[in-house]
Amino acid sequence: MTTIDLTTDADLRSRAARVIPGAMYGHMNAGRLPAGMPQYFARADGPRTWDVDGNDYVDLMCAYGPMVLGYNHPLVEAAADAQRRAGDCMSGPSPVLVELAELMVDTVASADWAMFAKNGTDATTLCLTIARAATGRGKVLVARGSYHGAAPWCTPAPAGVTEADRANLVSFDYNDLASVDAALAAAGDDVAAIIVTPFRHDARREQELASPDFARGVRERCTARGAALVLDDVRCGLRINLHGSWEPFGVRPDLSAFSKAIANGHPIAAITGTDSLRDAATRVFATGSFWFAAAPMAASIATITTTRETDAIARLAAAGQRLRDGITRQAATHGVGLRQTGPPQMPMLTFDGDTGFAMADAFASATARAGALVHPWHNWFLSAAHSDDDIDRALEAIDAGLAHVNATFGTG
Amino acid sequence: MTTIDLTTDADLRSRAARVIPGAMYGHMNAGRLPAGMPQYFARADGPRTWDVDGNDYVDLMCAYGPMVLGYNHPLVEAAADAQRRAGDCMSGPSPVLVELAELMVDTVASADWAMFAKNGTDATTLCLTIARAATGRGKVLVARGSYHGAAPWCTPAPAGVTEADRANLVSFDYNDLASVDAALAAAGDDVAAIIVTPFRHDARREQELASPDFARGVRERCTARGAALVLDDVRCGLRINLHGSWEPFGVRPDLSAFSKAIANGHPIAAITGTDSLRDAATRVFATGSFWFAAAPMAASIATITTTRETDAIARLAAAGQRLRDGITRQAATHGVGLRQTGPPQMPMLTFDGDTGFAMADAFASATARAGALVHPWHNWFLSAAHSDDDIDRALEAIDAGLAHVNATFGTG
Repeated sequence: MTTIDLTTDADLRSRAARVIPGAMYGHMNAGRLPAGMPQYFARADGPRTWDVDGNDYVDLMCAYGPMVLGYNHPLVEAAADAQRRAGDCMSGPSPVLVELAELMVDTVASADWAMFAKNGTDATTLCLTIARAATGRGKVLVARGSYHGAAPWCTPAPAGVTEADRANLVSFDYNDLASVDAALAAAGDDVAAIIVTPFRHDARREQELASPDFARGVRERCTARGAALVLDDVRCGLRINLHGSWEPFGVRPDLSAFSKAIANGHPIAAITGTDSLRDAATRVFATGSFWFAAAPMAASIATITTTRETDAIARLAAAGQRLRDGITRQAATHGVGLRQTGPPQMPMLTFDGDTGFAMADAFASATARAGALVHPWHNWFLSAAHSDDDIDRALEAIDAGLAHVNATFGTG
Repeated sequence: MTTIDLTTDADLRSRAARVIPGAMYGHMNAGRLPAGMPQYFARADGPRTWDVDGNDYVDLMCAYGPMVLGYNHPLVEAAADAQRRAGDCMSGPSPVLVELAELMVDTVASADWAMFAKNGTDATTLCLTIARAATGRGKVLVARGSYHGAAPWCTPAPAGVTEADRANLVSFDYNDLASVDAALAAAGDDVAAIIVTPFRHDARREQELASPDFARGVRERCTARGAALVLDDVRCGLRINLHGSWEPFGVRPDLSAFSKAIANGHPIAAITGTDSLRDAATRVFATGSFWFAAAPMAASIATITTTRETDAIARLAAAGQRLRDGITRQAATHGVGLRQTGPPQMPMLTFDGDTGFAMADAFASATARAGALVHPWHNWFLSAAHSDDDIDRALEAIDAGLAHVNATFGTG
């Protein structure tokens, strides 16, 4: 089996252990990943990433979503650089704020207006606050296990979360309208919103596409109750459908939360809404020190414009399909039982019977050693920068990963 | 009286009204400011800002805090540019994350560790979550009227906020230890933390320095109760004292929240804490899509290093004192009764008897027309880029503003 040098990475982890709790935090904490996967990165370009020891990878994580057109995309970086030279974080917004809001309204089918923030969590939280301001109601329906961010109301870790933080949440099961109806009955006439992701993409489980009936059903129920349908498009926005991830179903939310990919890695989040929520959005105090910074807005304009004017989403979906088809062939060859779920542009690979993720860990580690960056229990991301050659190179690494799984665990 | 052209600004406001709720949101919403003050900015450099109509200002708002060394500071921008060319938002952190954490621990007297986020609100919220995780308790003591961010638990606007969002807050009055004791008694044995700003810098009122007895008193009470003292240094950090804003009192918090100025305008926030909170910080899930981005960290290292190696804080304090002394002389000359409160590097000007801020509005508008950007009811900010000449130019504009107040309202 291939081995790679991760000496510099190990040194950095030791230094980090002294000055960072647990040596790292959050979703990029490689302490949650198997040995042999890098924590620290030195460089990224196009579809590729280099770790601090000089090992290079076809990057199928895409910064966990933000990178959608390729690292260092020339048009995006030129737009951000030009705006930064003029002014980025100033004593007020730049005209690019208006231009970006106009572009979002012109692009997102359900949008009559837009506001901007920094984190996906800012956007999902603001959607709920706006829905509550509009309805004068408190309760929000949330799917069990759905990730909507890392604030106390939604973080998956219980540490430091109080009962009050969740007092207004009512749970339902994704894709299960009967459970939505039960939650609505439990909440009575106090339902401000239903928040839902375009498909089920929670970590540590197979992904699950939304059924059209489910999407239409939550839309109908929100309309009937005068509650807001909030689409958490933070992870999917600009990868599934440029105009909103539920447009293929003909389902339009009242409020949408975007972040990750909308500026190809530059820090920004967006909230879009319909005219019926405009007054409520005006009354909510939404702000942050860097929320008006102009360079990420210029980057977002360039990202969305490039995505509109090219076949970027079709290309990244095709890259995902090429990857999926290749893995299907390889799994058959190696006799490894696995499932690939979710849309091809956001793949999730799970091994049959691998309840403790031991096979997934072995696979991700061996695949990294062979030159492709994947995740054992979180979905991956494709970008428009992944050429057929890049996918074929990634498949070579994945083949080594599957061979290692076969060698270690047998064919099941 | 001077008039200036704001035609382009007005056009942008009209366009914004169609695609942004209320035409603008948050603390940079010029709809809350008097007519004659610009909303949109085209350019910023050193201590100066240009609006979209080409009017230029000595900028005494400094992006509402982030700009502390001057816009487009060459060392900061060179560090951010170099890191960006290598990699910014990647599939994991860069070594600059470790370097910045080491630098924070070496710089902030109370810090044994650091974590990084994007918004000041992220940092204050995480401090409370960590304190709750550490103590297993829920209640937090907060000073009445203190601004700690824009999340539902702390936003100054009631729209969309539920009772549950505030259920664990207990109020006290700033600088009033008797009220702290009353709040402690009300909260019983469930106190996780006291959160407090280094001085009282809430909008729409005179600023109030912390008395040393108050600072030491909250420290003693937290220690006695096993609760965490959280210093919200988001607005003051890197302007008052490099090592922590309560260092002059010899008072060290258990947790500190930083943001705004720590990267001279680049988007980052920081949480620092003591070893006793390290395990709790490890258990909290703290993350965001852009929290590991490397360019703002490189900018922060350059900002903190420059501040350490130069007399930046002394210079911006001196600039603030020169401004304050000049305004005191001008007020006497014009016979206008006013008060200047807070530390000189974060000035607040209030007119005697001006309960509705009509005088402040007239003053800020006239001062902007004459070439200096100030705020009628929010503190201003000085930077190390404000030379004596810049302050003198600002004072000329302020003199015109005070003359306008005198002409409009008389000498009281």
